[in-house]
Amino acid sequence: MPSSADRGSEDARVARTRADVSRAALDVLRSEGWDDVTHAKVAEVAGYSKTTLYAHWPSRLDLVTLALDALGELPHHATTGDLRSDLIGELTVFRRAIEELKLDHILSGLAQWASVDEIAVLRDRINAEGQRPMRELLAQRFSGARLEAALSMLTGVVACPSLMFGALPEDTVVEAAVDIVLSTRS
Amino acid sequence: MPSSADRGSEDARVARTRADVSRAALDVLRSEGWDDVTHAKVAEVAGYSKTTLYAHWPSRLDLVTLALDALGELPHHATTGDLRSDLIGELTVFRRAIEELKLDHILSGLAQWASVDEIAVLRDRINAEGQRPMRELLAQRFSGARLEAALSMLTGVVACPSLMFGALPEDTVVEAAVDIVLSTRS
Repeated sequence: MPSSADRGSEDARVARTRADVSRAALDVLRSEGWDDVTHAKVAEVAGYSKTTLYAHWPSRLDLVTLALDALGELPHHATTGDLRSDLIGELTVFRRAIEELKLDHILSGLAQWASVDEIAVLRDRINAEGQRPMRELLAQRFSGARLEAALSMLTGVVACPSLMFGALPEDTVVEAAVDIVLSTRS
Repeated sequence: MPSSADRGSEDARVARTRADVSRAALDVLRSEGWDDVTHAKVAEVAGYSKTTLYAHWPSRLDLVTLALDALGELPHHATTGDLRSDLIGELTVFRRAIEELKLDHILSGLAQWASVDEIAVLRDRINAEGQRPMRELLAQRFSGARLEAALSMLTGVVACPSLMFGALPEDTVVEAAVDIVLSTRS
């Protein structure tokens, strides 16, 4: 039986391996896509042996789950109290995250993998967390069906062009969307 | 050299094979997802040998392209002239197509595969064609940035819950979205 000091360093080593492999899996997911999140590819990028990866994370689902762990907190806009600029700010941060963090790849991959229950649960959590600040802003003005509509509509103004055409909306389009939502009677 | 009658029946046979394989590839794409659109799986579903498939369509990209060919015309709402009911009608048909035709799988797969140039071109064409009737309806009221915003917003009210949470919006949410867009000053 190892001493507690040995066990401590063993735990630290496993945690470090996990962190390295998570980051590598997310790198592969972002740069190559979900098809390439394989033991061979992730081992190569992380600098570990395939044997080590298979020992700790035997399935591709394990690797994909690790990649999503590494996603961490999504960036959000720091609110100012002005609803119009806060909504535009949040959409602008979302648009930048799609570009810089390849969130579009992650979102479409989550949708593709969602027939796996574990991924559907992760997908729901990641997306709900991503939409939370926008939901809170819109809840200042809307509730019920109108809140759900406004939330999907503003998400869609950035997500739809990205997923459907690989394009991001201009500032004027983001502003027009926020103005359409805010000009409706509350 | 074959007689023209022989060539005619040869052409017909190839066309029939192509149609069978296209349909089988689309079936696999819808029921299993893009990862499963392989020569082995599509050959099995179509009732042809893998050798036949490899001879005509050597790459997985060929199979995916065939599947998208079989998609054909997307369903649309028959317009009545009343803008509000036409927009609600078009979104309702879109919502049903997601459920019945598994359009969400196709949309997220197109987004995933779009790093392949040929698929990006198909994706853009399929999505632009899918949005065309909605764009024409909204163009009665909006132009420029506001038209682009309204189009993405109404697409998003159906597409976002589907891709992000595997859920479809209630009628009240679809109606609220159309009312938000139409209540803005034009």
